[in-house]
Amino acid sequence: MGGKDAGATDGTRGRDPAAAVRAIVAAAGDHVAPLLARVEERLTAVAGAHGPPLDLHAGDTIAAGGKRLRPLLVLLAAGARPADEARLVRAAVAVELVHSATLVHDDVLDEAPLRRGRPTVVATAGPDMATATGDLLFSRAFAELAVPGGLAEGVRALSAASSALARGELLQREDAWAAQVTVDRYLERCELKTACLFKAACELGALEAGGGHGDALGAFGRRVGLAFQILDDVLDVAGPAQRTGKHRGTDLLDGTVTLPLILARERDTAVAAIDLRSVRTAQQAEAVCDAVIASGALGEARERALGMVAQAKAGLPGLPVAQHRALELVADSVVERYS
Amino acid sequence: MGGKDAGATDGTRGRDPAAAVRAIVAAAGDHVAPLLARVEERLTAVAGAHGPPLDLHAGDTIAAGGKRLRPLLVLLAAGARPADEARLVRAAVAVELVHSATLVHDDVLDEAPLRRGRPTVVATAGPDMATATGDLLFSRAFAELAVPGGLAEGVRALSAASSALARGELLQREDAWAAQVTVDRYLERCELKTACLFKAACELGALEAGGGHGDALGAFGRRVGLAFQILDDVLDVAGPAQRTGKHRGTDLLDGTVTLPLILARERDTAVAAIDLRSVRTAQQAEAVCDAVIASGALGEARERALGMVAQAKAGLPGLPVAQHRALELVADSVVERYS
Repeated sequence: MGGKDAGATDGTRGRDPAAAVRAIVAAAGDHVAPLLARVEERLTAVAGAHGPPLDLHAGDTIAAGGKRLRPLLVLLAAGARPADEARLVRAAVAVELVHSATLVHDDVLDEAPLRRGRPTVVATAGPDMATATGDLLFSRAFAELAVPGGLAEGVRALSAASSALARGELLQREDAWAAQVTVDRYLERCELKTACLFKAACELGALEAGGGHGDALGAFGRRVGLAFQILDDVLDVAGPAQRTGKHRGTDLLDGTVTLPLILARERDTAVAAIDLRSVRTAQQAEAVCDAVIASGALGEARERALGMVAQAKAGLPGLPVAQHRALELVADSVVERYS
Repeated sequence: MGGKDAGATDGTRGRDPAAAVRAIVAAAGDHVAPLLARVEERLTAVAGAHGPPLDLHAGDTIAAGGKRLRPLLVLLAAGARPADEARLVRAAVAVELVHSATLVHDDVLDEAPLRRGRPTVVATAGPDMATATGDLLFSRAFAELAVPGGLAEGVRALSAASSALARGELLQREDAWAAQVTVDRYLERCELKTACLFKAACELGALEAGGGHGDALGAFGRRVGLAFQILDDVLDVAGPAQRTGKHRGTDLLDGTVTLPLILARERDTAVAAIDLRSVRTAQQAEAVCDAVIASGALGEARERALGMVAQAKAGLPGLPVAQHRALELVADSVVERYS
């Protein structure tokens, strides 16, 4: 469940993600597509404003981005009549910049060669450049929120999420190869590594709409984020590789203990007996994946994620029909990638 | 001229830095000492709010801090009647958090074992923990500015400085071991790595005082920061080690080309002919330091720094006498560490 994996899936997994985004945008109303285009433009501009060589790496990172699920949540949470479109676009950009910064730093720590099929910054330019690129993207995220009339609550929401990301990254590394990771501990990690930023995205959008429904929309984002991460972890076990663009069991090879494995250990003493450090080759990882699947754990993990998506949708506040529908479609799209 | 060195000097170099700070505080007026104490309290609280093990490392980083020159600048730039003391304290804390985050990340990249005589986070807990600790401190910095009534201009100033720090870090690594680094390029690096955060500290203080004199105070901070960095780089060559708490020539061993070396190369063809990559031992580094000193380059570098300090003081805007005097003393204290 690395940020790595969460990120990797944005663009490469599932049915046609672009089609899912188009459907969401169509449901939300005519105003969303131009806003998304402005987000994209501004991301490119922000990444290119620092002189070489940072522009190159920040630009590549941004260009390699997935389907911009987090900025989309910001826009959708703001509804059809945001107070200030330019400010809304910048809030959406800020969330994506924090996400990108985290991916770049995760890749440094993982010494990851590829992300979304492209060479990572750390692979291309080394850890110094990658660390600085991540720091720069972080800094720029907060600059995006620093506009006249910008709201302190927005900065607070984003910094809470980015603190959580740092803590989640640590938790993941602390728990690496640990046999006794509990479901609660796993969920805490998902909360920090994924759900908090989804939540912040929705809160930022709600703020730009005037602050109504901030808590309810934040809760929606959080649940969608949790489901997103759980299903991502399911997919790492379920494959197949031609769908995910990578081998099954990469989490196992990283020592990342995810929900399917935790549940399989409860169900099957043979899985529980596996020493994760002995899983070193892609073949061995695939064999463990097969054992996890045979235990029936994937179904249980999926059920939990589906329950979270159902809760997310049920907890949506009273919103205009189009906005409500679009947010429901976002929640569904998280599931559809994996069905 | 690593952030490492700039940081290392805060607490360990020069004449009695605590006495210098006391003199500055006494000149500024009775309000500053309690504010500084509140900054210290809040730094400790912020570092301890994230659960183990981050608290440990963030706390150690903060506790190992030097004489809090940057927060002091924030407080002094705000003058005797800040609009909101709590907000001012948080602005000062934010600046120190960005500084600390940068030091932690620099130590990762340098694989530095010690800072200010204590083991670094990366040495104690590895690069994962250190990268996350730095990210956390960055995030928390911006959270400090996110208070009701907090000003977007403050967030912008701080994020501009932290973007600059990231770019400066890169520039330093790009230029490592490069023979042809020019004075201008060196000064650009000082600007990014040191002066921008000093500038932001003064701007944040000025904002809390109501925004008057923001540009002039920012220019003051920038010049003091440049002088600080140049003199720090002079001290790395001049030593002696019992004053600096480290061997002379550590910048040389890092491949960091600083002003004394650049000037010595212009003055002495033997120094110009040295291949920096061949300087590998403390003894070799000391020998190059001796050659730099013999060239007379240190005097020229010091002159530049003194000129910058004089400009900083001359450019101070019309301020109440106590505030003016305290800021002059800050500028002088940068020089006194090295005289």
